[in-house]
Amino acid sequence: MLFLVQMEVRIPHDLDPAAADDLRARERDVAQAIQRDGRWPHLWRVAGRYANVSVFDVDSPDELHALLSSLPLFPFIDARVTPLARHPSAIDHETAAAFEQASAAERRERR
Amino acid sequence: MLFLVQMEVRIPHDLDPAAADDLRARERDVAQAIQRDGRWPHLWRVAGRYANVSVFDVDSPDELHALLSSLPLFPFIDARVTPLARHPSAIDHETAAAFEQASAAERRERR
Amino acid sequence: MLFLVQMEVRIPHDLDPAAADDLRARERDVAQAIQRDGRWPHLWRVAGRYANVSVFDVDSPDELHALLSSLPLFPFIDARVTPLARHPSAIDHETAAAFEQASAAERRERR
Amino acid sequence: MLFLVQMEVRIPHDLDPAAADDLRARERDVAQAIQRDGRWPHLWRVAGRYANVSVFDVDSPDELHALLSSLPLFPFIDARVTPLARHPSAIDHETAAAFEQASAAERRERR
Amino acid sequence: MLFLVQMEVRIPHDLDPAAADDLRARERDVAQAIQRDGRWPHLWRVAGRYANVSVFDVDSPDELHALLSSLPLFPFIDARVTPLARHPSAIDHETAAAFEQASAAERRERR
Amino acid sequence: MLFLVQMEVRIPHDLDPAAADDLRARERDVAQAIQRDGRWPHLWRVAGRYANVSVFDVDSPDELHALLSSLPLFPFIDARVTPLARHPSAIDHETAAAFEQASAAERRERR
Amino acid sequence: MLFLVQMEVRIPHDLDPAAADDLRARERDVAQAIQRDGRWPHLWRVAGRYANVSVFDVDSPDELHALLSSLPLFPFIDARVTPLARHPSAIDHETAAAFEQASAAERRERR
Amino acid sequence: MLFLVQMEVRIPHDLDPAAADDLRARERDVAQAIQRDGRWPHLWRVAGRYANVSVFDVDSPDELHALLSSLPLFPFIDARVTPLARHPSAIDHETAAAFEQASAAERRERR
Amino acid sequence: MLFLVQMEVRIPHDLDPAAADDLRARERDVAQAIQRDGRWPHLWRVAGRYANVSVFDVDSPDELHALLSSLPLFPFIDARVTPLARHPSAIDHETAAAFEQASAAERRERR
Amino acid sequence: MLFLVQMEVRIPHDLDPAAADDLRARERDVAQAIQRDGRWPHLWRVAGRYANVSVFDVDSPDELHALLSSLPLFPFIDARVTPLARHPSAIDHETAAAFEQASAAERRERR
Repeated sequence: MLFLVQMEVRIPHDLDPAAADDLRARERDVAQAIQRDGRWPHLWRVAGRYANVSVFDVDSPDELHALLSSLPLFPFIDARVTPLARHPSAIDHETAAAFEQASAAERRERR
Repeated sequence: MLFLVQMEVRIPHDLDPAAADDLRARERDVAQAIQRDGRWPHLWRVAGRYANVSVFDVDSPDELHALLSSLPLFPFIDARVTPLARHPSAIDHETAAAFEQASAAERRERR
Repeated sequence: MLFLVQMEVRIPHDLDPAAADDLRARERDVAQAIQRDGRWPHLWRVAGRYANVSVFDVDSPDELHALLSSLPLFPFIDARVTPLARHPSAIDHETAAAFEQASAAERRERR
Repeated sequence: MLFLVQMEVRIPHDLDPAAADDLRARERDVAQAIQRDGRWPHLWRVAGRYANVSVFDVDSPDELHALLSSLPLFPFIDARVTPLARHPSAIDHETAAAFEQASAAERRERR
Repeated sequence: MLFLVQMEVRIPHDLDPAAADDLRARERDVAQAIQRDGRWPHLWRVAGRYANVSVFDVDSPDELHALLSSLPLFPFIDARVTPLARHPSAIDHETAAAFEQASAAERRERR
Repeated sequence: MLFLVQMEVRIPHDLDPAAADDLRARERDVAQAIQRDGRWPHLWRVAGRYANVSVFDVDSPDELHALLSSLPLFPFIDARVTPLARHPSAIDHETAAAFEQASAAERRERR
Repeated sequence: MLFLVQMEVRIPHDLDPAAADDLRARERDVAQAIQRDGRWPHLWRVAGRYANVSVFDVDSPDELHALLSSLPLFPFIDARVTPLARHPSAIDHETAAAFEQASAAERRERR
Repeated sequence: MLFLVQMEVRIPHDLDPAAADDLRARERDVAQAIQRDGRWPHLWRVAGRYANVSVFDVDSPDELHALLSSLPLFPFIDARVTPLARHPSAIDHETAAAFEQASAAERRERR
Repeated sequence: MLFLVQMEVRIPHDLDPAAADDLRARERDVAQAIQRDGRWPHLWRVAGRYANVSVFDVDSPDELHALLSSLPLFPFIDARVTPLARHPSAIDHETAAAFEQASAAERRERR
Repeated sequence: MLFLVQMEVRIPHDLDPAAADDLRARERDVAQAIQRDGRWPHLWRVAGRYANVSVFDVDSPDELHALLSSLPLFPFIDARVTPLARHPSAIDHETAAAFEQASAAERRERR
């Protein structure tokens, strides 16, 4: 099941710079590991902010909390979670995926 | 380019029911047409609310506004728009897509 | 899985009184049916407001949305949903249930 | 009587780590003691946040304040309290409990 | 036990004037009856607003909700409830009452 | 004249503990002195928070500010002030006081 | 004593136009009468809004409420009231008045 | 032209006390100088807060910013600025000034 | 002098459609006239909303209010006004204009 | 494409003064470089605040984020981004520019 997670990151300015760098490096590793196993399918930067918009695909709120609280930057993250349901007007996802590939190709040409 | 759009829909209770039904039917048609041409790649329902979380893929804010204001329910939608940028920790998308398919299969088995 | 749902109900004052009464009667029936099948384990009134605090036990956000949008008063409800996870300091629930029964008895005597 | 308590915990990042660990350990002990005596019947983690949703069962706001201010982390907790009343559509609790046990069993089979 | 209740009243402008007058007259009667039986010890107008600050003295949140929802204007009242506890720096109330009477007399002379 | 004052207290965690204890002790002394001279007739704790709800009886906003800024914890207090007027539905206060005493006695018996 | 009053005016669009015009005309008369008797020393329009910033000079919150609730537009006004005290850095007002006249003259020349 | 400026002052508790005293003393000097030259005609304390309500009379937003950013406490001030226009119901200011003097005299007698 | 004005437009859904069309047509004419005389140098649509971001160049807040309140849609506009000052890091505007033309040309080629 | 960016700057008071000065000097250099290459066409100070209102002209949200996160003060900036679209009532920009020059000349004479 899917959850929208909107994270704001606020690293205290007086944190030891080496510790902060280490946290960020480990954050990146953990974030990529979770993406690779398919549970963090979308991760975007909010333009202009140290913040992101994410979608997680997990089996339960327990699993979601386990993932988020395993992030090295968790103590400095303000996360708002929104549970997502299937939208009645969403087109069939498999069909859509085909359309998307085709149209992405078309649009690339158009640009 | 991608924009997160969070829409709340508030149809006035004293709108003529037939007019409201017609609006909703046309909204669905327009929403599906935009999904099919690849410019509305994600559309989720916010659980418990007459609201959605969407991601649009357009060439400009002008195109985004043209799409949103073409929605039949636009007069009753409160939309907040967040421009999205690529996240430095996001894994390569093509690679990720492959991982995702593989792991989605695995996870389906696990359940 | 559990979701906290905080609902505010705002029935428009110019709704036909008979229609409003009918909505409320049907709301009560639906609410009790969902409670009886075990998916709405907690329902409390917020003191002083036409509002409630609820906990739902469902299998997914999809099921949660299906339940909430089936409520006759849904068009007039503003619901905020919070996904709940197990708390690391929560005592074992079965054990706790036994304690709770025992201590509830004790406390009744004390009053 | 019941009170919904929504707590956000914010431990300052520059607190001595040993002191913080000690606080958390003592918090856990106190929280479990209050749960065991039946006055903290529900304690859930808010998924994605260092926060919880709780229900307390106490004899008065005085008792509630005494409990909450006895928590070792109290200086770092932002608690919002909502007094709860019986909901007119809540089904009889004893009956409900029976239903709940039966249906929980059924649902476990269904999964 | 005491609850602070802060009420904002918003009577729709298109309510029938006679019905509104009737509501206000009955509101006054009910409010005075509850004051007389000692359960609404403080009722003040917020200067400049159709709003009040109240303190209720009841035995439970259930009783508080029963009182508030019995107000004829309840459908048009937005009430925020804050449970109050004894303050550790509050002076003994009986002693204080004596002091208060004495000093009120003194202050009246001073003016 | 009366003013509702809602105070939140936030003592910085890195304040010297002895200094903080001293501040709190002096705060208590000053608060009780102002209560004793009749200018702080109501002081309640907000259940669950380091906060209070107060009513002050002073001759002017100048006197109110003088009192509040004399509190030793003033630099750490966030105070919101609401001027109170007599409510048209408030029953005569002298009469009410008599009723209140009588009914308080009755209610004590009832419990 | 002085109170800052910030008023937003929201006249419902479906109010009878003649009734609205009458309200506005009477509002103007009442506002000017209160200004003339010295109790509404400052009245400014908030640029760009149907709103004003006012300072009232009255003997009590009771008098303030009596004035504000006598405004014909009171049912459509959202007023926030802030009690004002003398500022320790404000220069002596009589002296200041003299300075002000002199410097206003100078500045007029400068322009 | 006039601007309403609402300032909240938040001096960090860990600022060197001598430096803070010096800032406050210099703030007072600068504030009085600006008042004397007629550009800060109104300065009031918000009762109960380290905050003020001010009206500035300047020739432009540039001049306003120059004044405010010259305040020694500027780094610790949160200022919200509202541009003020002449109100159509404000009585003629010269006439009003005469009335005000006369009525202030009357009111002084009345007290 | 410059003012940022952020306008949200909310036309009531039950306004007569012909009246609404007429308002919008006249709004457009008035908006273009003010742009042509140089006092509304910037007017942008907020993508996804019936809202705009504007910059006005006027001689005073009085002139700004006169312009805004002359808009036919003024009764349905919620406008927030921010006075703008010259920024110390802004490059010289004449120089900048030259740079801008040159670089706009370059960028057009680049696309 | 254009983005409105509203930035609040909050430099921690305990940052080393030399480091802060250096940050501000480098911020100015970077800001002017981006203005010179045409991608930051508008930069205004918010009167009374350490804040600015900016318009950026970039090819994508990615480019916008790259620019903003390259600012030396980025860790201390709270930026809200609003994507801007062409407004249907905006007059033709080339025509408008001619009008603007002419009318700016006229207005300069008028002053």
